[in-house]
Amino acid sequence: MVELWIGQKYVVYLRKVSTYKKVSVKKNTEQISAPVPTLSEKLQRGDLLSAGCPSRVVLKHITSRWGVLALMVLEGETRRFSELRRLIDGVSERMLAQTLQWLEADGLVRRVAYDVVPPHVEYSLTPLGQQAAQKVRSLADWVEVSFPAIMQHWDKTTAN
Amino acid sequence: MVELWIGQKYVVYLRKVSTYKKVSVKKNTEQISAPVPTLSEKLQRGDLLSAGCPSRVVLKHITSRWGVLALMVLEGETRRFSELRRLIDGVSERMLAQTLQWLEADGLVRRVAYDVVPPHVEYSLTPLGQQAAQKVRSLADWVEVSFPAIMQHWDKTTAN
Repeated sequence: MVELWIGQKYVVYLRKVSTYKKVSVKKNTEQISAPVPTLSEKLQRGDLLSAGCPSRVVLKHITSRWGVLALMVLEGETRRFSELRRLIDGVSERMLAQTLQWLEADGLVRRVAYDVVPPHVEYSLTPLGQQAAQKVRSLADWVEVSFPAIMQHWDKTTAN
Repeated sequence: MVELWIGQKYVVYLRKVSTYKKVSVKKNTEQISAPVPTLSEKLQRGDLLSAGCPSRVVLKHITSRWGVLALMVLEGETRRFSELRRLIDGVSERMLAQTLQWLEADGLVRRVAYDVVPPHVEYSLTPLGQQAAQKVRSLADWVEVSFPAIMQHWDKTTAN
């Protein structure tokens, strides 16, 4: 019997197989289909389900109330602070500045300040930010399109 | 000259076209390519950029700190409250209950209470919730996979 690890999958080669062995191999295959990630795998990517993993901080920034909308509005566009504030209805100057600082520190937003009077600051997405914006827009689009169905459920809940 | 509205697009048919007219038609086509949504279009789907639109509430529930993780853990699974609490590391009983109530009221989570002693309550996703979970998982997967790149940026920010 030859055993090989290929990536995360446990591959078993058999020379001679009895009925008993066949059954036991099948059982193994099932267990293998959902492998428990090793510690190094967990460290190579974030683990959002673990309270200690700082990837939760990134998720918090991206899914924050104004983070979602800022990423959407910046997708494929370079915008000034005042323009962002106008497009994201209801955001305060302070919260928009905080949100942009988070996203900049995470390497998702690029901030360029031009040395002119009056000051001119432009925000755009980095390639990493574009990826995040796509994911966020996909979720936001779903919320917008599914909203009537969700609202119907609100009506039902209130009626009962 | 015949003019037709087809859906959101302004289609112009011309019998005889002078150079001047051709230019003016081109200009129109450019403006038409990104049509401003009408009020009825805005009402048929949510408008997350508008402060008054209640679709923002749904987005808040789905992208809340524990909402994201609850949707991920429930994707394709039926789970008991205690199981959810164990899987979502760090969530308090109160916050998990609040999150599940939000998602239930939005029609994303189904709660089934069995009349036994001790009480047995099961949570699962509705078809609408499965859709939301897919979108959320896609975003969360991106965060987990991109996390090392983001963390490198943190190091750079600290170093400078």
